[in-house]
Amino acid sequence: MLSSSLPRVVIIGGGFAGLEAMKALAKSRADITLLDRRNHHCFQPLLYQVATAALSPAEIAWPIRAIAARQANARVLMADVTGIDVVGRRVLAGPSSYPYDHLIVATGVTHSYFGHDDWATVAPGLKSIEDATTLRRRLLLAFEHAELAEDDAERKRLLTFVIVGGGPTGVEMAGAVAELARHALAGEFRRIDPRTARIVMVEGGPRVLPAFPESLSAYAQSALERMGVDVQTATMVQGCDAHGVGTDKGRIDAATLVWAAGVEATPVADWTQAERDRAGRVKVNRDLSLPGRPEIFVIGDVASVQTSDGQPVPGIAPAAKQMGRYVGKLIAARIAGQSPTAAFAYRHYGELATVGRKAAVVSFGRIRIRGFIGWLFWCLAHVYFLIGVRNRFVVAFSWLWNYVTWQRGARLITNADET
Amino acid sequence: MLSSSLPRVVIIGGGFAGLEAMKALAKSRADITLLDRRNHHCFQPLLYQVATAALSPAEIAWPIRAIAARQANARVLMADVTGIDVVGRRVLAGPSSYPYDHLIVATGVTHSYFGHDDWATVAPGLKSIEDATTLRRRLLLAFEHAELAEDDAERKRLLTFVIVGGGPTGVEMAGAVAELARHALAGEFRRIDPRTARIVMVEGGPRVLPAFPESLSAYAQSALERMGVDVQTATMVQGCDAHGVGTDKGRIDAATLVWAAGVEATPVADWTQAERDRAGRVKVNRDLSLPGRPEIFVIGDVASVQTSDGQPVPGIAPAAKQMGRYVGKLIAARIAGQSPTAAFAYRHYGELATVGRKAAVVSFGRIRIRGFIGWLFWCLAHVYFLIGVRNRFVVAFSWLWNYVTWQRGARLITNADET
Repeated sequence: MLSSSLPRVVIIGGGFAGLEAMKALAKSRADITLLDRRNHHCFQPLLYQVATAALSPAEIAWPIRAIAARQANARVLMADVTGIDVVGRRVLAGPSSYPYDHLIVATGVTHSYFGHDDWATVAPGLKSIEDATTLRRRLLLAFEHAELAEDDAERKRLLTFVIVGGGPTGVEMAGAVAELARHALAGEFRRIDPRTARIVMVEGGPRVLPAFPESLSAYAQSALERMGVDVQTATMVQGCDAHGVGTDKGRIDAATLVWAAGVEATPVADWTQAERDRAGRVKVNRDLSLPGRPEIFVIGDVASVQTSDGQPVPGIAPAAKQMGRYVGKLIAARIAGQSPTAAFAYRHYGELATVGRKAAVVSFGRIRIRGFIGWLFWCLAHVYFLIGVRNRFVVAFSWLWNYVTWQRGARLITNADET
Repeated sequence: MLSSSLPRVVIIGGGFAGLEAMKALAKSRADITLLDRRNHHCFQPLLYQVATAALSPAEIAWPIRAIAARQANARVLMADVTGIDVVGRRVLAGPSSYPYDHLIVATGVTHSYFGHDDWATVAPGLKSIEDATTLRRRLLLAFEHAELAEDDAERKRLLTFVIVGGGPTGVEMAGAVAELARHALAGEFRRIDPRTARIVMVEGGPRVLPAFPESLSAYAQSALERMGVDVQTATMVQGCDAHGVGTDKGRIDAATLVWAAGVEATPVADWTQAERDRAGRVKVNRDLSLPGRPEIFVIGDVASVQTSDGQPVPGIAPAAKQMGRYVGKLIAARIAGQSPTAAFAYRHYGELATVGRKAAVVSFGRIRIRGFIGWLFWCLAHVYFLIGVRNRFVVAFSWLWNYVTWQRGARLITNADET
């Protein structure tokens, strides 16, 4: 079915948005090429569980090629895109180029250190499998090094963990690090007691989970505090270094920092000379196409889109999927000779975040759920949206096992030579 | 129970030998310190399944600290041993030192390139989790790069895989790479057909699996050939480089090389000024102690030991475990004031290796099993010897899943920037 006479659709990025766009074009007479610099789609909402040794990387990732295997009009190539020739209508990837008739850009976001890129090495974020195994190594090594430390102050510093950012990722990381220290590792050390680890969450705004209703923010904060997390709201980070974090309320000596504070768009705006917002996201038309370039669409976290009431569409998986489906169908209609005119309309279903075992917050329309029922809902929703029957089985089994035994199945320190 | 007045036993290495020694001392009035430079025990016999994306790293590895958690007289430290002060009776690890009354050295072996250490980067071996993920990355990247290649000769080179060495590891790798190419990846590429990949096994000796009875060697070779592996026996490797392998029978252009040809001991002999054999293994007394140093024992793959009929004890997991148990009990007896005199007696149970799905060879006393029954026996034996109930469940599930679907669950290319 791959023929050069068919309209060529190139999709950059195999995340939630890019994959949905590809699937929406499955029945279209198109010649689809999906480019990604990795071979796998990663289920980012569960990365924090890889970082805290609860799940293995392969349980939340799946080869993009396997997802596309049965879609005969699509091919997947592992290529690192370096630019777009918008005039010549070609995507550039090193020495290769991929001509397109329709282009979908879904390259996502990366961490933003607000101009302090030197903080990246000391405070890694959580966007890829590699990020997650880096954090896992640092978290587990901190306990190992604390067991070896001869000096009290150094041991205390090694047992201090700072999570910067109080959004869903920050809350989930803080809760999971607390569970790791208080339960999974407790009783396995002789000189230190992992339960004495200090976990600090620093949030610049007045409350954690700012996108959630206030009642759920308050619940999440008190749940974290019950787990022994020191939640510091209205606190601004002024500097990160190898020995700790400086804030406007004072300094915290810590060996392990996690960055969950902000994201910025990948460099699509530079490639396309498009207008961008403060976070580098590309401003798009109401049909998600680039102003003046109706053949280029920008979707997912990298797009700056407003809802009908002027609110920004959030950078979450359901939004990315909706955009992917919308643009895939729009291109399919164009290929079929139609001229669709309906603008993209984002439908917000809700928010959910887990604080830890038996404690999650769900905001779903007018429904507010928290605690154990919220946690069960969170587990089911995440297992349901995982790709692949096998991964659903394995993750469900891992969670059941963790729940019953308090053990963590993936406590590996690999590439230990790096740090 | 940890008190400086108790006899101090230091164990270097948390492999099969070191762990068994630790467990055999569980009821002894000893103060045990186990040092390992990694945080995990790795089940090396299944590393090839991680390298070929069938299992995840965490499924065959377990934190040493978790294994020792309930043994109150043992502590585990993650430390990289740099030497032994045999006169001062201290193990040195960078700035730290660990005094001992009894020392057990179980540091294992590493790859041997027979003086050509420059081959190591182009032909990685398979001894650690990192080795396995490096090989997995190279194997999977070769197919990805072949799909991108514009040149026929380059595509052919990218789809050629050479396994150097026809022992159990080489046979298992060759079979698993063949299954990956012929089944798991088939149908997922558009330009290449992974089933056309060429897999070559090069063995210097006259037959594969030289430690097995000849009938099983012949079966293994024909099983490999049925799977499409080009088995080249009596072929000597003369050079490895980034573009292929040179042998005395000619050159093979290949992008991916796997080294399964030889091992050499870790540098214990240098640390102890002990006599060594050709492979660098330390020659020990009949009680596995170092000549002239009754307080130092060398066990596992790093020890050069003979059976009662003068044969060398093989470097396999059951031998390492037997040595560990023997020395643990011997030290326990000495601590209890006894003077045990029985020499170490190795009991050889048999050999087993798998060629692939439904094809394994088992030599067990006078029993020879091959084919499907041998494969079932191999699966059961390996699941049984895995550490941790959870890992047994998960590996059994993964194998059942692979068997039914032909899928591989861990096809991740991570750290792709390295290659």
